[in-house]
Parts: sequence; C-alpha cells; structure tokens
Amino acid sequence: MNTVNHQFRLATRPVGAVKRSDFTYASEPVRALADGEVLVQNLYVSLDPAMRGWLNASEDSYMPPVAIGEVMRAIAVGRVTASKHPNFAVGDHVVGLMGVQEYAISSGQGLNKVNPALAPLPLFLSVLGMTGLTAYFGLFDVGQPKAGDTVVVSGAAGAVGAVVGQLAKAHGARVIGIAGGADKCRYLVEELGFDAAIDYKQEDVAAALKTHAPKGVDVFFDNVGGDILDIVLGRLAHGARVVICGAISQYNNTSAIKGPSNYLQLMVKRATMRGVMVADYYPRAMEAMSAMAPLLAAGKLKSREDIVPGLENFPVTFLKLFDGSNNGKLVLQVAA
Amino acid sequence: MNTVNHQFRLATRPVGAVKRSDFTYASEPVRALADGEVLVQNLYVSLDPAMRGWLNASEDSYMPPVAIGEVMRAIAVGRVTASKHPNFAVGDHVVGLMGVQEYAISSGQGLNKVNPALAPLPLFLSVLGMTGLTAYFGLFDVGQPKAGDTVVVSGAAGAVGAVVGQLAKAHGARVIGIAGGADKCRYLVEELGFDAAIDYKQEDVAAALKTHAPKGVDVFFDNVGGDILDIVLGRLAHGARVVICGAISQYNNTSAIKGPSNYLQLMVKRATMRGVMVADYYPRAMEAMSAMAPLLAAGKLKSREDIVPGLENFPVTFLKLFDGSNNGKLVLQVAA
Repeated sequence: MNTVNHQFRLATRPVGAVKRSDFTYASEPVRALADGEVLVQNLYVSLDPAMRGWLNASEDSYMPPVAIGEVMRAIAVGRVTASKHPNFAVGDHVVGLMGVQEYAISSGQGLNKVNPALAPLPLFLSVLGMTGLTAYFGLFDVGQPKAGDTVVVSGAAGAVGAVVGQLAKAHGARVIGIAGGADKCRYLVEELGFDAAIDYKQEDVAAALKTHAPKGVDVFFDNVGGDILDIVLGRLAHGARVVICGAISQYNNTSAIKGPSNYLQLMVKRATMRGVMVADYYPRAMEAMSAMAPLLAAGKLKSREDIVPGLENFPVTFLKLFDGSNNGKLVLQVAA
Repeated sequence: MNTVNHQFRLATRPVGAVKRSDFTYASEPVRALADGEVLVQNLYVSLDPAMRGWLNASEDSYMPPVAIGEVMRAIAVGRVTASKHPNFAVGDHVVGLMGVQEYAISSGQGLNKVNPALAPLPLFLSVLGMTGLTAYFGLFDVGQPKAGDTVVVSGAAGAVGAVVGQLAKAHGARVIGIAGGADKCRYLVEELGFDAAIDYKQEDVAAALKTHAPKGVDVFFDNVGGDILDIVLGRLAHGARVVICGAISQYNNTSAIKGPSNYLQLMVKRATMRGVMVADYYPRAMEAMSAMAPLLAAGKLKSREDIVPGLENFPVTFLKLFDGSNNGKLVLQVAA
C-alpha cells in the first residue's frame, strides 16, 4: 500500500495552552494489516476538553498520558477501508479512539460500528456518542434531578452542557445555563428551551443566580470549575448534588488548579459532590440512547456541531474549546 | 435571687484567631424564672471547632452567627437548680446549648436530660454527646465503610477523629490516623488501636500514605481541610467516599478558605465528597448510642477528655483547639 497517513504526534508536553510547536505534523505510509486488524480512514475527529488532560505527565489520571512521540489521542468516526478482522467489513462505519490522523489501524478493541443511515456521522461524536453518554449519566445517575428541581449547568452552550440542559428540561426541571456571551445565552433560551441563561462575561453571576434560583440550586452540573464553581456552591439548596464533569477554566493553568474554597457549603447544605466518568457507563449505553432517541426525533434534543475542515488545523482548532469560540460540539473534518 | 451569673459575651467579631478582647467577661444577677422556664447551673462547657464558625458574620452557615453582645454559644452539661417547667426537676442533669456562662435559663427546648449514674458528666459532651453522634453518622451514614476498607481520619486525636477511628476499627476497617506530634500518634496506635498514625508535623504525609494505604483510601473522614485534604484526595481508591466534617486548619484564616485543588480526583476516582451535619441525625441518636454503648463497655471505644477548670479561662482555652495542644475532647469545667 502506498497510502500516506498524516498525523499529529506529541513533540513536547504543553505548558499552559497548547501551541503548534507542541506537536509534529508527521506522515508515514500506512503499513500492511496483520490478521485481526482493521484499517479505518478517519472522517471526523472529536475535539474534547479532556484531551488537554491527556497531555499532562500526571500519573493520577484515569488514562496514561499521551507519550512523547505518540499520535495525539482522540475519538474519531471513520470508514473501514481494509479489514482482516472477522467483525468489520470494508465500508463499515466505526467510532473509537483513532487519534488525530488520517488513518488508524485497530485490533477492533474499543471500536464500535455506527449506522450512518440513522444520523449524520458527526452526531456519533456528540449527542449519539461520548458527549451524550456523559450528559445523560452525569445528569441522571450522579445529579439525580427530580421534576421541579432547579438545575444549573456551566459551560451550558458546550457539547455536554447543552445536552444536559435539554435532558433536565425534558425531565421537568427548571434549567439555568451559564455561558459566555450574549449569542450563546440567546441560543440556550430561544433554541434549546432553557428557562434562563447567565452570561458570565457580562453579568454578576452570583446576583443573577439569586434572581433565577431564589430557592437555591438542587443540581449543579459543572464543566468549568474555578470561580463559577465557587459561586454556585454558595447558592446550593439543602441536599444538593454537584456533578463534577470537568474544569475547562483550569486545564491550561500553569500553576495549581483552583480548588473550590466554598466546599464547606457541602457540609452546611448537606450536599454531595461527585465526579462522573463516562467510561463507567459504556455497558449502559443502550439505556441512554433509547431514552435520548425519542427526544431527538421529537426535536426536544437539539445538537449543534462546529465542524472545522482540515486535519492540519488541529492545534489552532483545539484552542477554540478554551477561549469559548466554538459553537457547539467541536469536530475536525478529516475527509469526506 | 441574688445569684450572680458570670458570662462571656461577644464584643467584636474576631479576625483570625480569637483574642481575649473579642469578648467581655460580664456578670449579671440571675433573674426570676417565668412559667415554663428552667434554671441550669452549667458544670462543663464543651469547646468545639464549630464555635469559631458561629463567630463569623456569614449568612451562609447552618446557624445564625452569635450576635454582638450575645452570650457566646456553646453546648454545656449542667444541673437544674430551679424549675417552673413540668419536665425538669431540681437536681436533674441536662445537656443543651447553654452558652459560656455559669447559669442558663431555658424554655426546655433543645434541653435533654442525662443520667450521671451512667457515665461521668463530661462524656455527655464527647462520645455520649454531639461528638459521638457526629463521628457515628459521619462515618457510617456518609462514609459507609465496608470491612477491609482503608479508612483515613484527619484530626485523628481530636474528639471526633478518635471516635471515628475506633468505630471504623471495630467495624473491621484498616484505620490510619493523621495527627500532629509523636505523642498523639503513639496514643492512636498504642491506646486506641489504630493500624497506623502519620505525624503531619514530622512526616511527609503523601509518602506515608503511600506506605500505609498502598491500595488507596476508601473512606476519608476530614476534620482539618487545607493541605491534608489535598494530599488524601491524591490517594483515593476507586469509588472512595470523602466525609467533610470540618476544616479546622482554615477557620482562623483571614483570607479565603483554601479549597481542595485536587478535587478533580473525585472525577478520576469516581469518588463522592459529602458533608455531615450532626443536627440531621438527632432523631436517630438512640441508634448511635445503642451501637456505641457496648463498645464503650467492652473498652473498644475509649474517650479522653481534656478538662480545663475555670470559666474565666475560656478564650485562651478555646485556642488550644487550633494549635492542637488539647489532648482529647476539650471541656471547660465551670463548677463541680
């Protein structure tokens, strides 16, 4: 085979925000498949906040860090172009950890087939993929909202946050989103049906929360950490549940992460703070999908993808997650 | 009546550690009782870390702050010396929020009789009182240890910590205490039967935890907050439970409380952080007492009280909680 595979490999561990020079844009010929292997051409690569964490040397994470010289880890959806694996045939569409590259060779482990007739392919990276599972189980399994509860979501216009808010709304909760910028806030209320949105770039979040959540916050789904987490901890209702899904405001820190100095409110309000890790819920994926599919079909669960073409744009596109300039689920289009 | 009641009243809100000048040492004659009231002579006054929190102006706490000019709030055990209340007779012993003073007049609300034949009176302020309830329900209801679990307790030689460790041990857990000083550590291991103790003043706590909890920490019962909390968060086992009972290292801060910058380990380790408030468990007090009484009788639950005589010594004695110089449950003896 003479197919060339372009790929981003980690050159140095980034300090603070990722820079172009932290990666090498390499290419290598696609090698021949061994028995049991499958060759996938990546079509869309998912860009997720968690990828920033995979670049740190810490031993304390849920996955080993991406090694220096290794292809940058990422989830992608692609098409099988060659197969020596009994479960995968040429033309199958699959999703898995295939990396920031044009082609991936897989043993089939962790590779899942998807049906492109059901939905546009990028949706398998968003609401019908990891994003949807994270939102669904983080909200229902960890957050446990009841009808009538006040649910607050930070990073509400982000991929996970937007799904969380819509699911909570469909469940009968009162939903308040925190997002950056008037456009995003308008989108949350007018298009996604949130009850209220707070623009943290323009508004006093504590004051706005007092207005929109006068009885306190029953469930807080946090994607951002930092000051926003502290402010919402100061407005918890009795028995509140705080879902820790991420801390995008802190991932590019060059000093220590800012811990929530209001954490003693967990004691005052008899509240619970718990983390969610999507990998724990893979065995229950069907449960989430069968609950979300009817909402999708009914237009009660909308998904917006921000699709940027060109593998070569990976480093600069990835940064959009951290300055909040993405509009919805950020996806890199690698091939058509 | 000509009885004089000496009392400590709040003069100014303390900044940082409490000073003598934050209080006035006042006296007033004990007034005549109205119908339904009871007069109690305080014998022992409980000195608890939570009292520091009651001195702050914050609206966000579980109780209103002590007002300027008000008698300092405290739990005490005393003897009824006069009664116009049908449920209390002269000579009864009672426990309740009677304040840092020699005499208290009560409507009977929140006042509970205790039987001095069952145990020395100071025990009703420690293991047979609030301290015991906090330890019991914080450990079992919030921490939920299983036999074989590794349980870590900070402030382990303190009133609550010592009870938590012994209860966990009796429950079949492996128990590690964190305390300040070789004497306290020896006490935990040799007298209370802890499996190990870490002297945070002398040892590298992170390294010692790695040694003593090689499989990670299943339950962390935290009384101190600050750096210790961060270190233990970095050693959690999968599915760990972190019980937030207090943060004595932070109560005298003049700047913001240090939040746990390692809180994202809740996500990595699928762990839960939850607060405990003893007031929630008053209705279940008998459950705790009936479980702890046989342990006390069997010598498996030891209690140590640090009894300091003299109401007038309140401010300086209270400070012992914060420099760790108390040995066991700190109690002020007001009368014999």
